[in-house]
Amino acid sequence: MIDKHGFMKCISCSSTFNIDQNLIVCPKCGGLLEIINEKEVDIKKLKGKGVWRYKDFIPGNYNKIISLNEGNTPLIKSKRFENLFFKFEGLNPTGSFKDRGMTIAISSAASLKYKIVVAASTGNTAASASAYAARAGIKTILFLPKGKVAKGKLFQSILHGAYIVEINGSFDDAMDKIKKLFNENKDVYPVNSFNPWRLEGQKTIAFEIFEEIGNPDFIIVPTGNAGNIYAIWKGFKELMNLGLIEKIPKMIAVQSSGSSPIADYIMGNKEKIEFVENPETLATAIRIGKPVNYMKALKAIKDSNGYAIKLDDKEIIEGQKELAREEGIGVELASASTMKAYHKLLDNGYINKNDKVVLILTGHALKDPNIWFEEETYSIPPSDVEVLINKLKI
Amino acid sequence: MIDKHGFMKCISCSSTFNIDQNLIVCPKCGGLLEIINEKEVDIKKLKGKGVWRYKDFIPGNYNKIISLNEGNTPLIKSKRFENLFFKFEGLNPTGSFKDRGMTIAISSAASLKYKIVVAASTGNTAASASAYAARAGIKTILFLPKGKVAKGKLFQSILHGAYIVEINGSFDDAMDKIKKLFNENKDVYPVNSFNPWRLEGQKTIAFEIFEEIGNPDFIIVPTGNAGNIYAIWKGFKELMNLGLIEKIPKMIAVQSSGSSPIADYIMGNKEKIEFVENPETLATAIRIGKPVNYMKALKAIKDSNGYAIKLDDKEIIEGQKELAREEGIGVELASASTMKAYHKLLDNGYINKNDKVVLILTGHALKDPNIWFEEETYSIPPSDVEVLINKLKI
Repeated sequence: MIDKHGFMKCISCSSTFNIDQNLIVCPKCGGLLEIINEKEVDIKKLKGKGVWRYKDFIPGNYNKIISLNEGNTPLIKSKRFENLFFKFEGLNPTGSFKDRGMTIAISSAASLKYKIVVAASTGNTAASASAYAARAGIKTILFLPKGKVAKGKLFQSILHGAYIVEINGSFDDAMDKIKKLFNENKDVYPVNSFNPWRLEGQKTIAFEIFEEIGNPDFIIVPTGNAGNIYAIWKGFKELMNLGLIEKIPKMIAVQSSGSSPIADYIMGNKEKIEFVENPETLATAIRIGKPVNYMKALKAIKDSNGYAIKLDDKEIIEGQKELAREEGIGVELASASTMKAYHKLLDNGYINKNDKVVLILTGHALKDPNIWFEEETYSIPPSDVEVLINKLKI
Repeated sequence: MIDKHGFMKCISCSSTFNIDQNLIVCPKCGGLLEIINEKEVDIKKLKGKGVWRYKDFIPGNYNKIISLNEGNTPLIKSKRFENLFFKFEGLNPTGSFKDRGMTIAISSAASLKYKIVVAASTGNTAASASAYAARAGIKTILFLPKGKVAKGKLFQSILHGAYIVEINGSFDDAMDKIKKLFNENKDVYPVNSFNPWRLEGQKTIAFEIFEEIGNPDFIIVPTGNAGNIYAIWKGFKELMNLGLIEKIPKMIAVQSSGSSPIADYIMGNKEKIEFVENPETLATAIRIGKPVNYMKALKAIKDSNGYAIKLDDKEIIEGQKELAREEGIGVELASASTMKAYHKLLDNGYINKNDKVVLILTGHALKDPNIWFEEETYSIPPSDVEVLINKLKI
């Protein structure tokens, strides 16, 4: 399949290729591929809602479309900050932003007649791959770090009928095994985010934001394997190439301090990217020490004149409670990091209150309900209700 | 506040009242109130998306609107049955359909200047009330049956900062306490579904279905406290009153056989409604023996020439796995009952394959991940992967 409206380019060796849906990594050096989309799209002619509304932006032939009506997520206005918005990606079908890319990846796999998809995952990719593959009638084999996947996410994978291989080690160890398997076995289609077709779906976050509120000044993104920040940047880049916006929002990566290779480099703590061997954070969705897409993420941050920040788990939990108790929005910890990052960047003057800012809330609170709440005392005895009402009504 | 575009009527004593947002139950007999909306609405002039798109259909003054962009949920086409659709209400902000009604109820409470809202709940109402009240700056007091609320739902309530009173007993016992509290204390605003304003939000499910696929032949609804089946019927009734549809879809209630007062009456097993003293089912969202809205539900079923059906827990679990593994949709058990109900009604000829049918999938799978999966053997050793691939690729 040759699509004349663009080309593919290796981010490592700079080799270029015709657009070819069969290409996942650079056939010359194994590096990450970028999909350079040069098709003219008339945004006024888009129809429908969700990811496939933007099909003109997405190269490839899809004779089978496997969709759960993903995307079209709420962009919720803050009730406290005039120019702050929350893109609630936790309301995708499996509860995370992964579904946007998965509909493209699994539609590709189905169109290319694969019977098996594989993925390493901290949990959200697992849930999403399992659901979409099930809908396509494709089998899923997941490599998960044993004991390190949130219960909700593991339940989803099993519910959707995936085969699960538990790895003694971290997510990064599981990812190494997936890369090896993909190199050695041509019967499996990998749906991790080194697969550039998945990012074509994720870039639609940018299009939805643009259609709803125009061009923001900043986008703040939880950053683990680091595909999403690049994907969103790419969406805005394509809008700029079409002359629809004049500049790309500054892309801000948020990491947990126990797992912050990108933030440490961008913040100047390290002279080059240094992987973290044993990443640790309660925010399991970003517990990734060797971000497979780090080169793409750095490109997005640098090209947009963006930044990165890291937060400790205590701060992230505070962000989760703040979002839930002040804004009414329940998100998983990785997503909550963006709330605290916003405050810090306001406080140090990097962002000001007039800047239009979007926080990408990547996953739903229900993904991981087992973190801190069992330690809280929440129950009050029935006999105290009247006293409580008298106290609260004032 | 008097709204001239309709009136309120007690379903028990038939007294009528001007539309008044302060009325929750009949001031004469304490019965359930119906809101009869007679406003002419031009559906072509609706703007925006989600519940508030339909504000012209919703009586009341809302000088404060508390919204999380609820509604606008996917209507997913079955990949196996040509005329079957899934309305995935699990993708509302707190993961269930309750949010549609809660945005109206909490906006009412905020507009009427209440400082405390109260609810009894099996869990989903609790999560929704806590989130919306938090956004409004209103305090929430929840009465929950001790040990009988799914973990995800309990987590949400705590995350959003509610006060929780655990009741030794069932949901119905908790509901009795809420009714008593509401009768005795004018400082609390009840957001359970005997509050008719909540159902005004839930009826928008009908409007969204109609705008997307026209008028279905059947709507299948999990039925616990029984407000939702009435609300959806009411939405279609209002479309019919506007001349937009010629008849109302047949409303089918689904209950669990351990908790089936409405189904037993409709199916002719009982001559009158008999409440169930100790309801039991794994589908916690419909574990309700004394449905507070049973009179409204019966009206909806009879007026639409509908029906009811009951299923045991084993069948409901099969429905959950089928939806997840064949359609890629992950729902909580109560919702899964509709899948199995569809099969049964197809098999017995009550529904045929040409009928346009919508299943209301009320809550997300992530609401309750602790039911059956821990008993399943799901993990395969890394050494078996190659053999597995060779088996699956054929």
